Amino acid sequence: MIAHLECARCGRAHPADRLQNLCPCGGPLLARYDLALLARRWGPQDLGRRRGMWRYREVLPAAVEEEPLTLGEGGTPLLPSRRIGPAFGLRRLLLKDETLNPTGSFKARGLAAAVHRARALGAGEIVLPSAGNAGSAAAAYSAAAGLACTVVVPRGTPPPIVAETVAYGATVELVDGSIADAGRRARELCADGGGYDVSTLREPYRVEGKKTMGYELAEDLGWTLPAAIVYPTGGGTGLIGMWKAFEELEALGWIGAERPRMIAVQAAGCAPIVHAFEAGAAHADPWPDPRTVASGLRVPAAIGDFLILDILRRSGGTAVSVSDGELLEGARRLARAEGVLAGPEAGAAVAALPKLVRQGTIAPADRVVVFVTGHGLKYPAIMEAG
Amino acid sequence: MIAHLECARCGRAHPADRLQNLCPCGGPLLARYDLALLARRWGPQDLGRRRGMWRYREVLPAAVEEEPLTLGEGGTPLLPSRRIGPAFGLRRLLLKDETLNPTGSFKARGLAAAVHRARALGAGEIVLPSAGNAGSAAAAYSAAAGLACTVVVPRGTPPPIVAETVAYGATVELVDGSIADAGRRARELCADGGGYDVSTLREPYRVEGKKTMGYELAEDLGWTLPAAIVYPTGGGTGLIGMWKAFEELEALGWIGAERPRMIAVQAAGCAPIVHAFEAGAAHADPWPDPRTVASGLRVPAAIGDFLILDILRRSGGTAVSVSDGELLEGARRLARAEGVLAGPEAGAAVAALPKLVRQGTIAPADRVVVFVTGHGLKYPAIMEAG
Repeated sequence: MIAHLECARCGRAHPADRLQNLCPCGGPLLARYDLALLARRWGPQDLGRRRGMWRYREVLPAAVEEEPLTLGEGGTPLLPSRRIGPAFGLRRLLLKDETLNPTGSFKARGLAAAVHRARALGAGEIVLPSAGNAGSAAAAYSAAAGLACTVVVPRGTPPPIVAETVAYGATVELVDGSIADAGRRARELCADGGGYDVSTLREPYRVEGKKTMGYELAEDLGWTLPAAIVYPTGGGTGLIGMWKAFEELEALGWIGAERPRMIAVQAAGCAPIVHAFEAGAAHADPWPDPRTVASGLRVPAAIGDFLILDILRRSGGTAVSVSDGELLEGARRLARAEGVLAGPEAGAAVAALPKLVRQGTIAPADRVVVFVTGHGLKYPAIMEAG
Repeated sequence: MIAHLECARCGRAHPADRLQNLCPCGGPLLARYDLALLARRWGPQDLGRRRGMWRYREVLPAAVEEEPLTLGEGGTPLLPSRRIGPAFGLRRLLLKDETLNPTGSFKARGLAAAVHRARALGAGEIVLPSAGNAGSAAAAYSAAAGLACTVVVPRGTPPPIVAETVAYGATVELVDGSIADAGRRARELCADGGGYDVSTLREPYRVEGKKTMGYELAEDLGWTLPAAIVYPTGGGTGLIGMWKAFEELEALGWIGAERPRMIAVQAAGCAPIVHAFEAGAAHADPWPDPRTVASGLRVPAAIGDFLILDILRRSGGTAVSVSDGELLEGARRLARAEGVLAGPEAGAAVAALPKLVRQGTIAPADRVVVFVTGHGLKYPAIMEAG
C-alpha cells in the first residue's frame, strides 16, 4: 500500500521496495500512501476485531500477503486519571499507558514495524543505537523475526534494560558518551558488517509504528482528538508520528482539521527542543553535556528537530522542561495515585502539568492526554526511591 | 448479576452482598450467576468494542451502575509459537502472553476483580500474603481504588517485586518461611486491624477475574477450545477459574461439552499437586520444605488442591514437575526463540513440553496453549542469567 518514500526535508521521492536510510540531502524519509484511493474503500467500520496496532495495517508497512511481525504491541489502555488530574484542577486528564506494550514501552510499536519491514526487504542483521528501551524492543522483535541484532548503548543506560536486551539474545556494545556517540558507532558497524541501521528516523518505518498511537487515540475518542497531548520528548518520533497520523486521518476523511496542542516535555539537563522553541529557532543546537536520570530523554540532538519544532508551533503547543527531582516525583506520584508504575520520562510529563496549567497552555475543562511511555521496573532511579 | 456464593466443598449457599471469606466448613466460595436467564439475553455478538477482561462484565462482580476498577487488564495476545513449538514437533503451539497485563502478570485480572468488589462492599484496607506478583498487583489496584494495602511476603521473594509493591504505596511485611506462613500472618493482621483478607480462594472474586483467561481463549479461538492447556501451578486459581469459565460458557450455550486437557506444571522443589496426582489422592499433603527460584510456584499447600486435582483428572490432563535448571532454561529459550521475556514459572511450562510430548499427553497436531504468566524483568534469576 506504500506508494513511495518522501524526504521530509527536500521533498524528493524514493522507492519503498528496498532498504533505505536517509535522503542524500540528509533528511529523514517518510512513507506515503495513496490515501485518496484508500479513502474510497477503507473506513472505521472496516477495522474489525483485530487487536493492537496492526488493526490499522492498511497504513502500515506490511504487504497484503505478509503476516505482520507481532508480539501484541498497541491497543494500550487510555485511563481516566483518578487523582493527578483533579489535584491539578484538570477535569478530563487521560493517561495513555504504553507500559502495557511488549518490552514495556512505546518503542515496541516502532520496532515491530521497522523489523517487520527490514526482514521483508532482506535485512539479515538489525543494528541501532539506543538510550534504553528502543534497544530492548529491537532485540525482542529481532528474536521473534529470527534476525541477529546489535545494540549500541551509552554507559549509564539503566542496567536492567541492558540485561533485558541481552536476554533476548542481542549483542550489546557499551560506548562512552551519549546516544549521539552510540549512533556514530552503530553506523560504523553497519558500514563494516552490512547490518541495517534502524536508528530512529534514519529508517522510514519506526515512525509508521509510532503513528498508531495517534490512530488509537482518535479511535478511542470516537474519531475526535484531545485538546492537548503531553509527550516526553527525546528523539520525538512519536510526536512526529502522531502528527502524521492526524494528517492521514484527515486525508482519509475520518477526522476533520482540528488538531491537539502538541506539548514536548524534556529534562532540564537535556532540553535542546525547549531551548530552540523558546529562541524561535527552526533547528535545535546539540545539547553539549546531556545529564538526566531519564535515559530516554538523554538525546542531545534529534534528527527530526525541525519537524518537532514545526509541529509544536503549528499546533499552538509548547515545550517545557522539568528538573530530575520533579520528574522522579512525577513518576512516584503516578504509581501511588494512579497505580501506574512508569519510568522517569513519563514522570516528566506528569511533572509538567502544573506548569502548563499555570501558564495557561492547558485549561481545566480541556481533554488532555499524557503519554506514559515506559515501565518503571527498568529504572533503578525509580525502583530504589521507595 | 451474581445470584449467590456457593461453597465449592459443601455446596452451601451464601449471600454475595457482603464481604465474605471461607465457608464455615473451610471451603472456598465461588460466585454463581443466573446463567439460564443470562443465556436468553447475552450472546457473543453483544460483547462490543470494550477491550480487556471487563468485556465479559455480565459474568464479573461489578454491578450495572458501577464503573469497573481497571488499569487495562486482560485482552492479552495469543501468539503462535515461532520456534519452540516446531523444535518439539508441536505444529500448533500458542503462547498466551499474560506479561502484557498491568503489573506484568496474570495476577492483575484477579486483583482487579477482588479489589473492585472489596471496595464496593465497604472494605477500607486490602491485606494479603503473596509469593510475589499477587502482592504488587494488589498494591497497584489498591492505589487505583484509593484503598490502603498491606502485603505479607516471605523473605526470599524477588527484591524487584518487593520494590514494585512499595512503589505503589503499599506496606510490605517480610516473614520467615513460605507463603503459608505469610498467610497466617495476614490473617492475624486482619483479625487485629480489620483489613479484608484477599488471599487466593479465601475470597470469592480473584477466581472470577482469573476465569476471564478462559473466556478470552475461547473467544480468540472462535468459541472453540484448545486440545490442551499447560499451566504453571502454584495456588492454581487460574486453572480453577478457566474450568469455571468453560462450564459457564457451556451453560450460556457459547461452547459445547468439549474440554481441554488441563496440565499443571510445578517445580521439582515444590510439587504437592504432582505428588498427589501421581498417588491418586483427592487432596495434596503440604510440601515440607518448598525450594525453587520460581517464587510463584513456591506454594506448599493450595486451598483449592481438591478442585485442581479433580479438574486434572476429569479433563484427561496430568501434572508434571521440572527442575530449577530446566525451568530457567525454559525461560531463556522463550526470550531468545520467541521474543517473550518471562518469569521462571512460564519457563517451567515451556520446560514441561518435551516431557508431555514424550509421554503422549500432547500430540504434534494438538492445539496447545502455554500460559506465560509473569514478566521476567522482576526476577534476578532470569535477568542475571544473561
